[in-house]
Amino acid sequence: MSVFYAPSLQKEQSHYQLSEEESKHCIRVLRKQVGAPIELIDGKGLQAFTILEDAHPKRSILRLESSIFHEKTPALHIAMAPTKNMDRIEWFLEKATELGLSKLTFLLCEHSERKQVNTERLEKIAVAAMKQSKRFYLPELEGPMYFEDFLQNHPKGYFGHCQEGEKIGMSGLKSALPFLIGPEGDFSEQEIVLAINSGYEAVQMSAFRLRTETAALLATTALLP
Amino acid sequence: MSVFYAPSLQKEQSHYQLSEEESKHCIRVLRKQVGAPIELIDGKGLQAFTILEDAHPKRSILRLESSIFHEKTPALHIAMAPTKNMDRIEWFLEKATELGLSKLTFLLCEHSERKQVNTERLEKIAVAAMKQSKRFYLPELEGPMYFEDFLQNHPKGYFGHCQEGEKIGMSGLKSALPFLIGPEGDFSEQEIVLAINSGYEAVQMSAFRLRTETAALLATTALLP
Repeated sequence: MSVFYAPSLQKEQSHYQLSEEESKHCIRVLRKQVGAPIELIDGKGLQAFTILEDAHPKRSILRLESSIFHEKTPALHIAMAPTKNMDRIEWFLEKATELGLSKLTFLLCEHSERKQVNTERLEKIAVAAMKQSKRFYLPELEGPMYFEDFLQNHPKGYFGHCQEGEKIGMSGLKSALPFLIGPEGDFSEQEIVLAINSGYEAVQMSAFRLRTETAALLATTALLP
Repeated sequence: MSVFYAPSLQKEQSHYQLSEEESKHCIRVLRKQVGAPIELIDGKGLQAFTILEDAHPKRSILRLESSIFHEKTPALHIAMAPTKNMDRIEWFLEKATELGLSKLTFLLCEHSERKQVNTERLEKIAVAAMKQSKRFYLPELEGPMYFEDFLQNHPKGYFGHCQEGEKIGMSGLKSALPFLIGPEGDFSEQEIVLAINSGYEAVQMSAFRLRTETAALLATTALLP
């Protein structure tokens, strides 16, 4: 069955109108006809089963037959400095969404080389990965925000850095805490001190030097419940 | 210091000649001059420190000053059916090499859609990732080989499949055993029976539906020592 993302879907609705873009995809590309079953998900746990009632190429109307609310999946929060190369952020987001990411915050660090991200494009990637992996929750995208501001909101968690210092192992991490990943040039010494003083634990991530996005993906797997 | 891959390097050599391609890169691109320090790695544990003696753009000569042999890293063997899209195999190999992959076997399964891989291109990606991550061992690439033939050589290990059946958790896997990942269409029922009868344990990998390469990367992290 075809699945469409319907962020404004309400449980009590009797009918839902697809956007112009989705209508085109549904009618012109997938060539759906009146009576076709269509699934909707809102990215916040709601899944609805509908029937195509008006196969309009710009304003298709679906009739809701039934719906299910899916329980929220566990928190899995990664906060990372965006990589210079956007492709690497994009694939991280695709993979992490499949695995169960619930929130991704972009951090602005002292050594950050990229200050901006294309949130609209990233959301499309997350939506596609959510559908592909049969999830019902879309990861929240946040930021970019300053490292210090993030610590104010999230005083405890885990982080990886490449400098010397006390570090804990990768196993037995508490899934509900955020895991911070620095930029290509690593966290600065000052940021490391700030994080530790706030209540963060440094994690020994690998015997080898990991790229930012590889470290972020490894952190994601370490937080899986 | 610049690092070059020198697969035929010998510990006892006094001089090493860079290939035509590497000489060009060293002299024309990096503009190295006589006396420049150059590091060589053979991908089998040997690291040599050299000095550029003849800055020839096609046949550069390096003088070996000293060398170190690095202990072999633990076995970490993934065997996967290649994905339809080569890009997805390539990024898996890059990430897994950073994390510590020691061997990647390509499997031919009943539902395989791709039967061939470009091994030369994949080796280049593995070499780049090995240098990037400061590893001294290049992962071995093997196959494509038939699933049944692989089981003959490796009668025990782990595998992921999407069908019902008894499965173990992701934690506490023995790093030295291979982890098998099927094609986009999953392992066939017959392959699942064959694997279990041989001595493989099915692993419950995720609450969500993972793409082939995401499953392979998750398996890699689960086998990390």
